Amino acid sequence: MPDDSQPVAANQDDALVLRQDTGAIARVTLNRPKAYNSLSLEMMRVLTATLQEIGQDQAIRCVVIEGAGKGFCAGHDLKELRSRTDRAFYEEVFETCCQLMSTITRLPQPVIAKVHGIATAAGCQLVATCDLALADDAARLSTPGVNIGLFCSTPMVALSRNVPRKRAMEMLLTGEMVSAPVAAEWGLINQAVDHAGLEAAVMSYAEAVASKSPHVLKIGKRAFYQQLDQSLDEAYRHTAQVMTENMLARDAAEGIDAFLEKREPQWTGE
Amino acid sequence: MPDDSQPVAANQDDALVLRQDTGAIARVTLNRPKAYNSLSLEMMRVLTATLQEIGQDQAIRCVVIEGAGKGFCAGHDLKELRSRTDRAFYEEVFETCCQLMSTITRLPQPVIAKVHGIATAAGCQLVATCDLALADDAARLSTPGVNIGLFCSTPMVALSRNVPRKRAMEMLLTGEMVSAPVAAEWGLINQAVDHAGLEAAVMSYAEAVASKSPHVLKIGKRAFYQQLDQSLDEAYRHTAQVMTENMLARDAAEGIDAFLEKREPQWTGE
Amino acid sequence: MPDDSQPVAANQDDALVLRQDTGAIARVTLNRPKAYNSLSLEMMRVLTATLQEIGQDQAIRCVVIEGAGKGFCAGHDLKELRSRTDRAFYEEVFETCCQLMSTITRLPQPVIAKVHGIATAAGCQLVATCDLALADDAARLSTPGVNIGLFCSTPMVALSRNVPRKRAMEMLLTGEMVSAPVAAEWGLINQAVDHAGLEAAVMSYAEAVASKSPHVLKIGKRAFYQQLDQSLDEAYRHTAQVMTENMLARDAAEGIDAFLEKREPQWTGE
Repeated sequence: MPDDSQPVAANQDDALVLRQDTGAIARVTLNRPKAYNSLSLEMMRVLTATLQEIGQDQAIRCVVIEGAGKGFCAGHDLKELRSRTDRAFYEEVFETCCQLMSTITRLPQPVIAKVHGIATAAGCQLVATCDLALADDAARLSTPGVNIGLFCSTPMVALSRNVPRKRAMEMLLTGEMVSAPVAAEWGLINQAVDHAGLEAAVMSYAEAVASKSPHVLKIGKRAFYQQLDQSLDEAYRHTAQVMTENMLARDAAEGIDAFLEKREPQWTGE
Repeated sequence: MPDDSQPVAANQDDALVLRQDTGAIARVTLNRPKAYNSLSLEMMRVLTATLQEIGQDQAIRCVVIEGAGKGFCAGHDLKELRSRTDRAFYEEVFETCCQLMSTITRLPQPVIAKVHGIATAAGCQLVATCDLALADDAARLSTPGVNIGLFCSTPMVALSRNVPRKRAMEMLLTGEMVSAPVAAEWGLINQAVDHAGLEAAVMSYAEAVASKSPHVLKIGKRAFYQQLDQSLDEAYRHTAQVMTENMLARDAAEGIDAFLEKREPQWTGE
Repeated sequence: MPDDSQPVAANQDDALVLRQDTGAIARVTLNRPKAYNSLSLEMMRVLTATLQEIGQDQAIRCVVIEGAGKGFCAGHDLKELRSRTDRAFYEEVFETCCQLMSTITRLPQPVIAKVHGIATAAGCQLVATCDLALADDAARLSTPGVNIGLFCSTPMVALSRNVPRKRAMEMLLTGEMVSAPVAAEWGLINQAVDHAGLEAAVMSYAEAVASKSPHVLKIGKRAFYQQLDQSLDEAYRHTAQVMTENMLARDAAEGIDAFLEKREPQWTGE
């Protein structure tokens, strides 16, 4: 019998977040389809807990996040937001949201967003926060908070670190939808793919990633986000040290030897 | 009779900068057409003062900047720059220019550049500094200071924060013109539009922006530029606080309620 | 007889790095064609020394870096990396590599990468680090370290400062090749050119750059990289000061006067 402290419901179909592993790939599904998978406080907590659990799971090398039903994610749960009017509640909501995003960035495994339908506000932020993102050609993304009097100020942290400044401002000030092909041009997603091909395209990336050494993915992903916040000189000092540590890892020796010997590497994950 | 301390001349046609309001949209026109609207010290002061006045005007929700005559703006006034050779004068010129750019960035209202003809050197910087920019297909932009022995070092601050690094370097090192369609691809402007459609396209953006809550636009624009200079963690800490404050504002309650009730919001600007 | 301390071999054809000057343009050729010009420790030292020498050479206004043989550069020398297993050696290798990249960024003259064949790992970093880059249409770039257990952590410092975040992550996590035309779209290189036209295109950029005042190029290039690491306000404070100093230089007076008098400027390099 499932433990109540686990983020998975007794009947998994009722859970806010589903997790299904296929080999080294964990698929995480936002499962509030009737509410466009909007991020209620509980939804954000369960999603964060699910991801943290995956972060501890050495068998998983790549994560795919997708949404159940008609769209990826419509952002915060507006009814819930209006159900309370006290500062403490809002602080809790937005801190929980930031912790969710930070969990994705700090997760040892790369995370791929698989986007269909809409990804709006904090849903668009989720896409921007994932390491990679692919979307259905027909998907649309936006940061429409300005239309409802709540500027997408936390989404813009991720958005403005993914797309050029004037594109970000256009999305934030007008709240207009951006089609997946345009989002791909702007760099918000890696690719827009026709609906029939989306699952295969996502799996192709996921399998490519999952074929690498998990130890090396962890080293590289962590260093990537660290060095982005550093000056050029700091970034080089830091990553030179990271490269040295990486060379001392068993998987580097194995990987380079395999390459020189023209054979497949056997990762030990160390 | 106009007060002499006002930045508007007795006969407005002679003023260096014209301001015309249409509803909540203020149009600011650089008005030295014979000098390609070049930014003499006086021009920069009057433009800054005009914008600061608009910043205080609660009736204005969006600003459009354009140039009178054949082009948008040709940068600094080179004759004036060569009319003096003392350090104090140059310091005054470049500090005044930086204050102009900073005024745009800190203005509570979004600012849209409407670009035709040429936008060069500090004129190109002006485009890069505006929150949004649209240009005539035939417009051309450049940072040609290197051709006259005066590297576009202040323009590059705005330029390099709008376009990828190698594009910025190409413009700065060669001084070559970039056509509006290419500038749109690079992210320096939002759109290149055919001449006949430019005014309508600019007004479409301006009206979209002006339909939002001015209080929320102010919150969002300020947070946007603040968080760009912060590390990822700092940016989230800061914007989570901004979101909380935003939720406590009357326009957020009204906006969300209107959305949930499927009606138009009535902004109070608070 | 050549001095052994010089980075040029007795018979220049045997040198790891060749230098050939044409007017004010220095061409630097990586010359280990059998090893795809991979960056052995010695190769990085000789290349750094060659560039430092050029940095002192007031006759040179622009540098072109290219590779001999079938490709531009395949990154570190993997056999050499595996010939030792001690931390001190790895630290030496990666610090030497960072010093090479830093030398390019700090060189007073602009540096253009001329890319053909492949540019991978630290070879791709070299392209990203150069101020400008042009490539043969058929060239391919990648950061494939993840495939051999050695994440491209130092290359990503340059890569992530040139291309949008999700493009960088895609290259780093999958290790896949990116064609030159796609690299041009992403901003990693300035242009992809057909093979027959590459040399002419590179020389066209190099000659454009070399026609400017070397003093002004030095001022501008240094300020460019400095201001990128600063906040917006700091960047403006700094570059306003740079502009003032620039205006006090003889080449600014000459350049502006020449422009106003519609004649060619005569640079003094001061």
